[in-house]
Amino acid sequence: MTSRPRSAGIIGAPFSRGQPRVGVDRGPDVIRAAGLVHRLHEQGCAVKDYGNLTFEEVVVDEPVGAVKCVRAVGSANQRLSEAVQNVKRDGHTSVLLGGDHSLAIGSIHGHSAAVGDLSVVWVDAHADINTPLTSPTGNIHGQPMSYLLHELQSKIPVLPNFTWIKPCVSAKDLVYIGLRDVDPEEHYILKLLGVKVFSMSAVDQLGVARVMEETCDYLSARVKKPIHLSFDIDAIDPSITPATGTPVVGGLTYREGVYITEHLCQTGLLSAVDMVEVNPLRGQTEQEVQSTVHTAVDLLLGCFGRRREGNHSSDYILPEP
Amino acid sequence: MTSRPRSAGIIGAPFSRGQPRVGVDRGPDVIRAAGLVHRLHEQGCAVKDYGNLTFEEVVVDEPVGAVKCVRAVGSANQRLSEAVQNVKRDGHTSVLLGGDHSLAIGSIHGHSAAVGDLSVVWVDAHADINTPLTSPTGNIHGQPMSYLLHELQSKIPVLPNFTWIKPCVSAKDLVYIGLRDVDPEEHYILKLLGVKVFSMSAVDQLGVARVMEETCDYLSARVKKPIHLSFDIDAIDPSITPATGTPVVGGLTYREGVYITEHLCQTGLLSAVDMVEVNPLRGQTEQEVQSTVHTAVDLLLGCFGRRREGNHSSDYILPEP
Amino acid sequence: MTSRPRSAGIIGAPFSRGQPRVGVDRGPDVIRAAGLVHRLHEQGCAVKDYGNLTFEEVVVDEPVGAVKCVRAVGSANQRLSEAVQNVKRDGHTSVLLGGDHSLAIGSIHGHSAAVGDLSVVWVDAHADINTPLTSPTGNIHGQPMSYLLHELQSKIPVLPNFTWIKPCVSAKDLVYIGLRDVDPEEHYILKLLGVKVFSMSAVDQLGVARVMEETCDYLSARVKKPIHLSFDIDAIDPSITPATGTPVVGGLTYREGVYITEHLCQTGLLSAVDMVEVNPLRGQTEQEVQSTVHTAVDLLLGCFGRRREGNHSSDYILPEP
Ligand SMILES: [Mn+2]
Ligand SMILES: [Mn+2]
Ligand SMILES: [Mn+2]
Ligand SMILES: [Mn+2]
Ligand SMILES: [Mn+2]
Ligand SMILES: [Mn+2]
Repeated sequence: MTSRPRSAGIIGAPFSRGQPRVGVDRGPDVIRAAGLVHRLHEQGCAVKDYGNLTFEEVVVDEPVGAVKCVRAVGSANQRLSEAVQNVKRDGHTSVLLGGDHSLAIGSIHGHSAAVGDLSVVWVDAHADINTPLTSPTGNIHGQPMSYLLHELQSKIPVLPNFTWIKPCVSAKDLVYIGLRDVDPEEHYILKLLGVKVFSMSAVDQLGVARVMEETCDYLSARVKKPIHLSFDIDAIDPSITPATGTPVVGGLTYREGVYITEHLCQTGLLSAVDMVEVNPLRGQTEQEVQSTVHTAVDLLLGCFGRRREGNHSSDYILPEP
Repeated sequence: MTSRPRSAGIIGAPFSRGQPRVGVDRGPDVIRAAGLVHRLHEQGCAVKDYGNLTFEEVVVDEPVGAVKCVRAVGSANQRLSEAVQNVKRDGHTSVLLGGDHSLAIGSIHGHSAAVGDLSVVWVDAHADINTPLTSPTGNIHGQPMSYLLHELQSKIPVLPNFTWIKPCVSAKDLVYIGLRDVDPEEHYILKLLGVKVFSMSAVDQLGVARVMEETCDYLSARVKKPIHLSFDIDAIDPSITPATGTPVVGGLTYREGVYITEHLCQTGLLSAVDMVEVNPLRGQTEQEVQSTVHTAVDLLLGCFGRRREGNHSSDYILPEP
Repeated sequence: MTSRPRSAGIIGAPFSRGQPRVGVDRGPDVIRAAGLVHRLHEQGCAVKDYGNLTFEEVVVDEPVGAVKCVRAVGSANQRLSEAVQNVKRDGHTSVLLGGDHSLAIGSIHGHSAAVGDLSVVWVDAHADINTPLTSPTGNIHGQPMSYLLHELQSKIPVLPNFTWIKPCVSAKDLVYIGLRDVDPEEHYILKLLGVKVFSMSAVDQLGVARVMEETCDYLSARVKKPIHLSFDIDAIDPSITPATGTPVVGGLTYREGVYITEHLCQTGLLSAVDMVEVNPLRGQTEQEVQSTVHTAVDLLLGCFGRRREGNHSSDYILPEP
């Protein structure tokens, strides 16, 4: 009924080299401009904004095999990993504002470096689990989970600026929600590793409430680990969040997205959140951009205690005439 | 399979002083213009349209404490209460076309004065249960339930033109559906009084069918009372009903709204309905206005026996060649 | 996990005389232009496109009673029935691209002539079961099921160019999904015959997953027959598929539509599919047309093995560095 103290440590990562479309680097600033910090404060959440990371310019970054911008992505994620470690050591729930989803590499790596074994809840239209050798596009935002999973280590070639990465997630600690555009190679990997997947078919079949119940039962069946939520805004239906690089029809409703964040918040285990792939240049109209950005903000508020039934502080006294 | 005889007594209340936005006083006329009476007739429902109420002009209406337009709201609701009593004594199901939601004061008061104890189903994005002393805005459309509940009587100051109001609803006879923007003070009151609330989180969790089943079980657990449905059009998602004063994202779908009315109709207990906060001046386009108004009409048709599976009269004979 | 071999035999039927709006005859070409054949191939489905049927011109076609274009509809459906029989004899799953829904007469007739007793799953906002004598409009696209049901044979007058039609479906082998605009006469017939109907109320109450489970349990309770899916695009909500002649609010979501096709595909019994009432001239904008057409394509892909969780071929080997 009353909210526990929470604190958010916000890192902006204006980075777009994990995919080809300009604009996703503006994500952190448009999400902040929509009032994220103020609204977190309003709901009783402490906030420290660590500002935006700056990334070293990588002048020469020729493809390695089919993989694009390897050095820039590797370098940016190394910086991000250190930033997330700082935020966790300061005692906050880490909030990464992307930027593209390649940033999950540094975010999850840094989170794990600070707190140890994690559960990962990956909410996305896509599985982002191609290896550098299976990726049909070469864009690293479609590959981050492959670098992070212990079980895929032998499938990953040596890449420049990636040698600092140590796999830190077990396949049994990963749950996907919202998938609806999965490459055949990714499907093979998911089945090979036995990863728990709630595709949109499963959401349709079970409903979001049972999906979240099963997700949390599955992840806490052995031991309750800190949860890393990696939320790609393209998980939500493009009618609501069109301003993103790779929209796919048939996504989660706004309500389902918010329900996911409310439910994870109430576990008390949410320790880091990524909000990625908001690209204000991909909206056709200002209204499309605003709908996308405000949805991203509402999802983050849900992660930090916002409940649609309301909240009140424990010391409130009702006035009498 | 066949419809029982029903009759609707329609009262228009072109009143907007419970909130600051012009246009909501045009609600009754735009809802009628969309064919409400004709379509009720078509589905075999008797209709008496009592026309629009006229309200005395209140020239001097300075705020009382923070509360705005107290005298106008008090006076209009007294007139409305009498009108609803007439409609009920004529044997109809009362239909209030608002106007803003402050009109629920007179509508529920008059309904109760005519038939005795009521159940109230309040479908709204908002709880509208601030007292005059907790209201953050001073707009009475955010306060009506506070004047009507027995349990809050000691929290309500004396207000001009409000002395005729006698609390007539018990907290245990009230169910909310659709809440998603609840003030902390309202949340405190709801918990203090133990009011049954199905917020949008609950609708997401249970689904609308179970919400309605639980609503009706809860309300009829002791004794089956006549049901007063107070439907704020902002309960429905603003993608469908944008032409309203205080839209809130993440609302009920059109289908969920219609399901609620179908289900309540089938209880046989529906005795009065408010359809409020339709404001044609708040639509950005004519299409937005029409979508809002037609949804309001469809919700009312659902209250009077419309079923999506169809209906036929009991004496129909299939023609043969 | 891996896909079984499937093959689609596509028939285009550019026919619109079962209803009064021009444009629905362009359905086959716009659905093909959206890449249907290519995308079926991509997902491992064999395809033979039989091209568009040509229909004899019917110059004099005065109404028969109230029924319009009887001779043209009868003649076109006779041709279609033969075409579907050819497709089935060639061993394909038949795919009819309409054209209006009067074409279900020939499609189901031909399907049954080739394979015997059928189950029919009719997904539509409308029941399309008026007899020539009950139809309020005289448009045959609102009547096809009446010509096909054994149980209604005595209610059907003799009509020119309709004498070749033999009723071939039993009421117990028919399931409706998505109904929300049913004429009283149709409702009488549905109840008289005890037809299984999942109206939108039922979809709201049960959820689409349980609707599909109950549909398949019901149809296979006695003996597993080949399934004929007759999908009227107006079953889907007009916010998604507006480019159709008789849109009705409150329809199936995109996700519910796709779920229906995925589920039927997985029965292994799907033997013929109609995709009808796509009318590119009824979209207000190119975006509305594209949304309608792409939804039609996605529904067809779902019928032929597309799964949102992904697929992979059984011989895939994950590359190593
Ligand atoms: Mn994605
Ligand atoms: Mn992603
Ligand atoms: Mn409201
Ligand atoms: Mn209200
Ligand atoms: Mn239809
Ligand atoms: Mn149809």
